[in-house]
Amino acid sequence: MVAYGAAREYNDFDSIVPGAQLLLILDGVEDPHNLGAIIRTANAAGVDAVLVPERRAVGLTDTVAKASAGAVEHVPLVRIGNLRQTVEKLKKEGFWIYGLDERGTVSYDEVEYALPSVIILGGEGRGLHQHLKEYCDMLVRIPMAGEIASLNVSVAAGVVLFEWRRRTRKNA
Amino acid sequence: MVAYGAAREYNDFDSIVPGAQLLLILDGVEDPHNLGAIIRTANAAGVDAVLVPERRAVGLTDTVAKASAGAVEHVPLVRIGNLRQTVEKLKKEGFWIYGLDERGTVSYDEVEYALPSVIILGGEGRGLHQHLKEYCDMLVRIPMAGEIASLNVSVAAGVVLFEWRRRTRKNA
Repeated sequence: MVAYGAAREYNDFDSIVPGAQLLLILDGVEDPHNLGAIIRTANAAGVDAVLVPERRAVGLTDTVAKASAGAVEHVPLVRIGNLRQTVEKLKKEGFWIYGLDERGTVSYDEVEYALPSVIILGGEGRGLHQHLKEYCDMLVRIPMAGEIASLNVSVAAGVVLFEWRRRTRKNA
Repeated sequence: MVAYGAAREYNDFDSIVPGAQLLLILDGVEDPHNLGAIIRTANAAGVDAVLVPERRAVGLTDTVAKASAGAVEHVPLVRIGNLRQTVEKLKKEGFWIYGLDERGTVSYDEVEYALPSVIILGGEGRGLHQHLKEYCDMLVRIPMAGEIASLNVSVAAGVVLFEWRRRTRKNA
């Protein structure tokens, strides 16, 4: 067993943005197991930092740390005040913004992801906020073969982040 | 909220194998949230049936049904007695057996998946049993970019199943 400090440190926005190729923004992930699994997945897929809003999001509890398999110690985490302002700022810095949404117009595996990229994931069972969708350069969906409308958010993160990685490695 | 019957019915092995293009075998997934998320993912990726061993695996509880977002009602589930015998039988039926393992020799995105396919996932934190590995036609790994050695098993299921789907759709 690994012990985690109760108070995880957050990183500063301005310290993580320069040189980043892939940022992940979580728009309201509230389940600590999902948050942990997403941070673990982010580490595995080469995400440079995970950005979480201060409001309405789950904190970095021990449950999160455990579900992350220790990845909270490796993935820079940034708390952001206003999500929309952050996305605007990232656009000005040259980032391309990809929002994952059930009603996205392009399949995740047909996107030519431009660098540097930001991928935004919505919360469980709700998806992206409408006002955030308007700031996305592209709304991306994962096509569902069966009766269920969506994946668990941490599974969706894995599918999209690893496709991003596969495509950008291939083009590198 | 959706209510689920306490006793989910299992399907018969011989009824699901003919015509199947993709079967998923779970070698000892013990967490009910993971099992539910995997069944949900299996439905979304077009898996024809999920096979779970009778021993050492979690039952189809309400927790599993809820984590599956109702997918337990749609994905045929088959209980199998002897995992190794089942895999042998599937090989004789013409299935190609892909085992997901941290020490796999081929990256999941470089496999030309042959049809019909069986994908085998190991349990949390342990991976595939050694005696099962020997029955796999190929041991497949998901390359990890960071410090963490593996993904959550339901996230790994999503990454591999959707890559299988992407590749087999493209070649169809």
